[in-house]
Amino acid sequence: MAILYAADPSEADQWLGSIREIDPALIFRHWPDYGPAEEIDFIIVSGHLPGDLSAFTHVRGIQSTWAGVNHLMQGGGLPAGVPLARMVDDGLTVSMSEYMVFHVLDRLRQGKALRQAQREHVWADHPVPVEQRPTIGIMGLGTLGQDAARQLLPLGLTLRGWSRTAKQVDGVESFAGLDALPAFLGGCDILICLLPLTPETTGILNRRLFDLLPKHACLINAARGAHLVEEDLLAVLDSGHLDHAVLDVFRTEPLPAGHPFWAHPKITITPHIAAITRPGTGAALIVENYRRATAGERLQNQVDRAQGY
Amino acid sequence: MAILYAADPSEADQWLGSIREIDPALIFRHWPDYGPAEEIDFIIVSGHLPGDLSAFTHVRGIQSTWAGVNHLMQGGGLPAGVPLARMVDDGLTVSMSEYMVFHVLDRLRQGKALRQAQREHVWADHPVPVEQRPTIGIMGLGTLGQDAARQLLPLGLTLRGWSRTAKQVDGVESFAGLDALPAFLGGCDILICLLPLTPETTGILNRRLFDLLPKHACLINAARGAHLVEEDLLAVLDSGHLDHAVLDVFRTEPLPAGHPFWAHPKITITPHIAAITRPGTGAALIVENYRRATAGERLQNQVDRAQGY
Repeated sequence: MAILYAADPSEADQWLGSIREIDPALIFRHWPDYGPAEEIDFIIVSGHLPGDLSAFTHVRGIQSTWAGVNHLMQGGGLPAGVPLARMVDDGLTVSMSEYMVFHVLDRLRQGKALRQAQREHVWADHPVPVEQRPTIGIMGLGTLGQDAARQLLPLGLTLRGWSRTAKQVDGVESFAGLDALPAFLGGCDILICLLPLTPETTGILNRRLFDLLPKHACLINAARGAHLVEEDLLAVLDSGHLDHAVLDVFRTEPLPAGHPFWAHPKITITPHIAAITRPGTGAALIVENYRRATAGERLQNQVDRAQGY
Repeated sequence: MAILYAADPSEADQWLGSIREIDPALIFRHWPDYGPAEEIDFIIVSGHLPGDLSAFTHVRGIQSTWAGVNHLMQGGGLPAGVPLARMVDDGLTVSMSEYMVFHVLDRLRQGKALRQAQREHVWADHPVPVEQRPTIGIMGLGTLGQDAARQLLPLGLTLRGWSRTAKQVDGVESFAGLDALPAFLGGCDILICLLPLTPETTGILNRRLFDLLPKHACLINAARGAHLVEEDLLAVLDSGHLDHAVLDVFRTEPLPAGHPFWAHPKITITPHIAAITRPGTGAALIVENYRRATAGERLQNQVDRAQGY
């Protein structure tokens, strides 16, 4: 039996090299020249399916190299009833939290204003308000949101979090459910979105939500592009209500040429690199889930297909 | 008796307001209209003296609002034999460490390359090398250097430190003395300078030192401008040996118009804002040192004028 590598081809060497270091005996096939379909008992995918996988009826498990698997569950390309696992990797979590600390610090330390001052050859020596520390609000208190909170706390910031169901996180004032959203948002100087993408959270970053934020708030979205109503963001940035947005994810990726975000002075674009899974650490999860799948055990980080995450 | 405020006039309201909150009974005079000199028993200064203070013969103590006091000891404007204290303030230390974390992250997360990509409307989605973490070398393991190390450790970086005399800091490989400098520098991907400025460290960031760093290393200097031989830095940046420099301090401040640093693509300039003393916390030290000075006790953070820090 063999593992089909149907994930991002540019990452194949890294992933398979890391997996072979753990178990050199594993046999791999590559999409689309995978040989007899009935020899495949496990599939590795990334953010999108390379094609229809529903004919792989001998597959016992599917592992994504991505944390978010919502794209995989749309369109019906997966074999029915096969367990699907998402990537939960320390390296990925570390990378995401680091991204949040970096962009929060870029705002605290007025990176944008100071870079602008340098371009203008201006010595702007009182740009940082030293007495005030902003309140950070984190939407989504799963693995990523909780770790981001842990990494942001040492900066001396006030933290609050919002989730569908109430969560207890040390040092974070917790808000739960849609009723609590206005109270939560009213105190967020920087709003971080780390929600899973579900029908309920699609388009949640919209005009109504932005209007509930204090004036001059900043948005950081590193969850999924479909959380954001892009036209609504442009409206509140241009009206001056929101001050800045840092976006790692977009409705269409790569962000199309000519998209108004590219040249917007109040938008920082990063190309979906906030959380990067490191093959070295993620490979161990894949090997373990291959063992579990072939032994008929429940996978680690197996996705509840009904709930969507 | 009265305290002469001879520090930065733009910060007078903040400092005196914070001090009065602690002790409303204190009497202040302002430079240059300070009334009878013999009524002054304590002086508050900042980075530079506003004029000759040597005639204040009744002064029992001098407090700087800055951590670095080297400028104050040049030129002979201080009354002889009067104890001088520098500012050591949690807020200042926090601010400096935050600056280091921010600029290290800006390099780790390839902030410069991603901002450039956005300006060019390019989706640069593999810019971050995920497997390697750089080694950070900190020159100077005093209060600031040790705290910077503490704040950088959670980023998963390898840390090494260099100081005049050997220091033990958790998680930091320690090097001491000039003989150990080549071994220390040979492994530094990012070199942070937090040394005190003394005759021995003036000009220490020079061509010979840069040549001992690995190719593509990065320098962060937030100590004093006189640590750096500016021409030598330009030479190693232009030759491609060093990759980037982040500079908060300069030989002449404000950095003069027309200085080649302003427009250099490999230099990030910040206007001496890495460590900002917060009047709210620094004021307590000043009030305590005024009490000590008038009681004839040794000041907190009193400077050894022979050693220079």
